[in-house]
Amino acid sequence: MNSLPIGIFDSGVGGLTVLRAVRKRLPDESVIYLGDTARVPYGTKSRATIERYAVEDAAFLVDKGVKMIVVACNTASAMSRERLRQEFNVPLLSVLGPGARMAARVTRADRIGVIATEATIESGAYERAIGESCGERRVEIFSRACPLFVPIVEEGETDSEITRLIAEQYLAPLREQKIDTLLLGCTHYPLLKRVIGETIGAKVILVDSAEATAGETAALLEREGLINQTGEEASYQFYVTDAAKRFHRIAERILGEPLEHLEAVEVWGHDRLERD
Amino acid sequence: MNSLPIGIFDSGVGGLTVLRAVRKRLPDESVIYLGDTARVPYGTKSRATIERYAVEDAAFLVDKGVKMIVVACNTASAMSRERLRQEFNVPLLSVLGPGARMAARVTRADRIGVIATEATIESGAYERAIGESCGERRVEIFSRACPLFVPIVEEGETDSEITRLIAEQYLAPLREQKIDTLLLGCTHYPLLKRVIGETIGAKVILVDSAEATAGETAALLEREGLINQTGEEASYQFYVTDAAKRFHRIAERILGEPLEHLEAVEVWGHDRLERD
Repeated sequence: MNSLPIGIFDSGVGGLTVLRAVRKRLPDESVIYLGDTARVPYGTKSRATIERYAVEDAAFLVDKGVKMIVVACNTASAMSRERLRQEFNVPLLSVLGPGARMAARVTRADRIGVIATEATIESGAYERAIGESCGERRVEIFSRACPLFVPIVEEGETDSEITRLIAEQYLAPLREQKIDTLLLGCTHYPLLKRVIGETIGAKVILVDSAEATAGETAALLEREGLINQTGEEASYQFYVTDAAKRFHRIAERILGEPLEHLEAVEVWGHDRLERD
Repeated sequence: MNSLPIGIFDSGVGGLTVLRAVRKRLPDESVIYLGDTARVPYGTKSRATIERYAVEDAAFLVDKGVKMIVVACNTASAMSRERLRQEFNVPLLSVLGPGARMAARVTRADRIGVIATEATIESGAYERAIGESCGERRVEIFSRACPLFVPIVEEGETDSEITRLIAEQYLAPLREQKIDTLLLGCTHYPLLKRVIGETIGAKVILVDSAEATAGETAALLEREGLINQTGEEASYQFYVTDAAKRFHRIAERILGEPLEHLEAVEVWGHDRLERD
């Protein structure tokens, strides 16, 4: 059991920032990554659709025999966490909780900005999660949907003039709110960290939910006694639902090395739990 | 047969520009419109995936009993025209041909710019179609993928500062090529007509493939003897695969009136032709 891989899924390439952080924190753990590139983006779609996609993604990973699942897509986390817990027995961690807890921990002025997709912001999931982490403490939260950031990252335009202009448009209001902490509430956003950091200002702490999630993944595996101690070298397998070439190009840039194993698959029909 | 509706499909709201033009040109024809909003956008995905989606979309419309199908998505047209012709018996018109023929007809300087999604541009379908329309005449074609235009339109940001900046970025090279005609090779783009026109310059003729398609739809119905002459009032039914509320908001703005009938449906499984 302990030598089984961790399963990570996202709507596209964004979750690779989580994979990168997990690999750094847990170099002995193998990972199976699924990017649902045939249906990306999730963040503009409805709860019912996102739930269905997330169940299919998770079912694919469970069929592959993973020992835990990391939901590396904030939209899927916000929309389908409860549903996934009902449907699947494997330990489950979603990026939403770790990011929220870290933001609540690092803020000094108790003024937290949250940027995410439209679906995530509208769900109010981050406000609730940060609120829960803060307990009695009073924290002000300023949320802002940044719908064009995902297509920008998927286009690979992570540091262009367009990206800077759009970042200014989205982040200027948060700058004026004098936030001291900005939670990157979408796993695509760490790829825009430089532009976001320069736009929001150097004093604002950027909370990367990918790194927070890697830390909590390690803690969860410890707690469940699932850490891999076989001494075998870790392997990384990548699956996408579409356009493997495009994914390959972006993934290599994010991970800084060629992918060992990349395969295009279908995940629809993996929601047998629903259809039976 | 003649009183049956025309079927129009697109990946999302873009095809509504075709519906609008068809309604104006053929006010007595009923229309069933399908927007595959659960899987939008198509333009960044692979041929195999786009073909599969297009077959499912068309099968849904055929099941609804349409007398002809208009493929109101340039990406689907470029990628799946042949496949759709093989699979279905109903008369089929795709936006690609009419747009190309009109561009070839209106250019004076024989310098045509084409803007479209990445998938459409990479397919080379417009270069081929314009070339065929021009016969012996030598026309220079300058193509440019504008990948962020679709998300911008789907976001409803049709006339914002961001839109202008992105348009400048995409269109400046075409302006320098001294094109005299610009083909809007994606049905989303007519919604950015004002910004595109101001950016490319007033002297450049914009070819709206939606209008060209409406004209050829009328011609096809005439030719096939399928014009509705029952005198009954035309009806318009809208189907989406996700997020009906969001679609409703944008559709009302595009069509200028409330939608009579809007329903969320599933189209997957409508590709029976493939699965049998």
